[in-house]
Amino acid sequence: MEVVASILLDIFFIYAVAVIADELMERIHQPPVIGELLAGVLIGPYALGLLGMPSAGLAELFHSETAAREALNIVYSVLAELGLVILLFFVGLDTRLSSLLRVGGRSAITAVAGIILPFVLGHGFLLVLGLPSIEAFFLGTAMIATSVGITARVLADLGYLRTVEARIIIGAAVLDDILGMILLAIVSGLASPSGVSALGIILLAAEATAFTGFVLLVGTHVIRRFSIHLERLHIQHAPYVVAILVTLGLATLSSFIGLAAVIGAFMAGMVFAESHEKAELERQATSVYALLVPFFFVITGSHVDWRIFLDTSLVGVALAITGLAVVGKLFGCGLGAWGMSLRSMLIVGVGMVPRGEVGLIVASIGLAANVISSEMFSIAVIVSVLTTLIAPPVLSALYGARGFATAKQAEERQELAVEREECGEEERHFPPRL
Amino acid sequence: MEVVASILLDIFFIYAVAVIADELMERIHQPPVIGELLAGVLIGPYALGLLGMPSAGLAELFHSETAAREALNIVYSVLAELGLVILLFFVGLDTRLSSLLRVGGRSAITAVAGIILPFVLGHGFLLVLGLPSIEAFFLGTAMIATSVGITARVLADLGYLRTVEARIIIGAAVLDDILGMILLAIVSGLASPSGVSALGIILLAAEATAFTGFVLLVGTHVIRRFSIHLERLHIQHAPYVVAILVTLGLATLSSFIGLAAVIGAFMAGMVFAESHEKAELERQATSVYALLVPFFFVITGSHVDWRIFLDTSLVGVALAITGLAVVGKLFGCGLGAWGMSLRSMLIVGVGMVPRGEVGLIVASIGLAANVISSEMFSIAVIVSVLTTLIAPPVLSALYGARGFATAKQAEERQELAVEREECGEEERHFPPRL
Repeated sequence: MEVVASILLDIFFIYAVAVIADELMERIHQPPVIGELLAGVLIGPYALGLLGMPSAGLAELFHSETAAREALNIVYSVLAELGLVILLFFVGLDTRLSSLLRVGGRSAITAVAGIILPFVLGHGFLLVLGLPSIEAFFLGTAMIATSVGITARVLADLGYLRTVEARIIIGAAVLDDILGMILLAIVSGLASPSGVSALGIILLAAEATAFTGFVLLVGTHVIRRFSIHLERLHIQHAPYVVAILVTLGLATLSSFIGLAAVIGAFMAGMVFAESHEKAELERQATSVYALLVPFFFVITGSHVDWRIFLDTSLVGVALAITGLAVVGKLFGCGLGAWGMSLRSMLIVGVGMVPRGEVGLIVASIGLAANVISSEMFSIAVIVSVLTTLIAPPVLSALYGARGFATAKQAEERQELAVEREECGEEERHFPPRL
Repeated sequence: MEVVASILLDIFFIYAVAVIADELMERIHQPPVIGELLAGVLIGPYALGLLGMPSAGLAELFHSETAAREALNIVYSVLAELGLVILLFFVGLDTRLSSLLRVGGRSAITAVAGIILPFVLGHGFLLVLGLPSIEAFFLGTAMIATSVGITARVLADLGYLRTVEARIIIGAAVLDDILGMILLAIVSGLASPSGVSALGIILLAAEATAFTGFVLLVGTHVIRRFSIHLERLHIQHAPYVVAILVTLGLATLSSFIGLAAVIGAFMAGMVFAESHEKAELERQATSVYALLVPFFFVITGSHVDWRIFLDTSLVGVALAITGLAVVGKLFGCGLGAWGMSLRSMLIVGVGMVPRGEVGLIVASIGLAANVISSEMFSIAVIVSVLTTLIAPPVLSALYGARGFATAKQAEERQELAVEREECGEEERHFPPRL
């Protein structure tokens, strides 16, 4: 009883700092996501320590402070994961399969070039610095994955998910996750004594591709034909409840086959984007979004140990690698928007800059297997944090040429886009002005 | 990573059985809440054991199966608590202070008579059976508290929260929680060597009353005058986000002063029931309701060890006490609707029948202090389970004289009631027919 009450206090506290951070960021015309991440760093265990401290009752329950802290972390991780799942479901709801396929080639170029260029730059730079080639390989690999959560959140908050650039980015981010999973399998093999199994990796790639392809092609087809029958269910709010169920199911399934849970959630959103009740579903998902999504960003922020930025011997190298990581994505991914305006190329490039947890997982595997040093691991963390913090404000500025749009304009823009689509109008390259 | 994935699977599984149970119950014209509770019993650790079993990764993380199970339980409890908080926020949103005050006298009679009569009947019966007077006192006390969650859920699902009977029940349930807290302090004192402190109990009662009164009177006043200014906030979905924040805050506060968290959530709902955006808030809360509320009922069900019902030596006494518990509430609480129709009296009486966790907490304190036997504790559990399962179908039947209304009719009725209220129409004693 007392244990749950103390966790309820934490939940209130996380939500409160998120709301305050959002409001501050909106007032200085910056993306709310940055406020939530920084608020998380501030209240996290490495700074003020207001989050992640188990109550006396919890410590007593586990007879150990460490175990209690672990239990608390699991509660936070579950909340964060639910937030991320809902975010990607929401993004998927705004993504039609047809429009994703139309930019499929561009997304593929963005994903692949956005992996090769940062890897070559990072790997080359570290070899020049004199690192052993396996360490340079691991760090190069840690530099390539894109975190879809950050960019998706910024685009959703701006109400620009339906622009062509957003579709290229989202498509590329999904491909990136599949490629990232394969690379993860390769580096795990490199770090283990048994080595890399080519057959295993081919099977993994085939499995991921088959899963994604099957869900998207068959799922959207089934929903288009049968979603009208969901009304026949006797439960209240039938289409919405079924959509949530499918989202949780596909998220679980996709994490069990080795992809990120959010990929499944995104696909569930895309499947229901084809349903007759899409507009209503979007309205319903918005309330859950506003409740759960902030938990992901505040809790992610709380995991950052800001003290590594104080280590001056590391920061120089880290800044150089961050620069290469940004430049690599900017040019590599910008290629995906070749032939479009310079602004579109920049949007796609910047949208792919945030590095995600995949990079940190790669670095952790290397650290655990003793093939990378703890200094190099800290550098990977710095690259991840900096790229994540750089992208949102730049992306906002690129979209809103006359300054960052207000939240209310974004809300209206989103509604306008839904209405436009309902009336069969084509989506636009350039954001519609209000 | 793997740990969170396995919990995500549990979450999917809980939601899936809830949706299936809801659909089955709607088809046989029974309240969904019963389906969710029974589904919880079925998949819980005491039956099929599909829920509450930690994954290998979780057990490894804690170096102990028991600690891992405890951690998993905490995750479930937090989810369940969030569900209950959202349910009571939703109920509060549908409760105007003015209409609650109008039935205030009836609620007070319902609460007080509904405590005295079951206590006298239960205590007397157990004394006749030859139990020591302290044991009879503890069990009598365990029989008196009402669980607001069950009845609130049934009324919300039926779309009848705005009827006079519903308001009497809800008001009485809140008073019951305050009285229950005071009784809990008394029995805790009886079970401890230091005894009962009269001053402490008076302070506790004053604190709870002051908290409730202050929030309701000042909060509703502030919201009526200032809710229009919430639009000035820069964050997206401002009134809704602030309402969620206040709900989490009051829920936490109320659990810290010793009341149930749901009382705070209910009051937050009542405060925002006075806001200008009430109808919109209700629409937004519905989506969160459909996502989170089922977790409370499935998880609550999973805590029930159904095997105690196999102990034939206990079941006879338990059934007799359950009968007295039902009769006590029916006559005691029915008094609150004195002068109204027989049906109204029955609705109020039956609505107060479900016994809640307060009863079980009283019994646990007695068990821990060795003043009640484990047999008597099992009897308290049986009474709690049976009264919880009896009330919903009877209540549904009483409301829908021509059979249980379908979920879709309930949805429409709820919308109709909102529109009626917006147009300034008076609420009715008898449910409006569709």
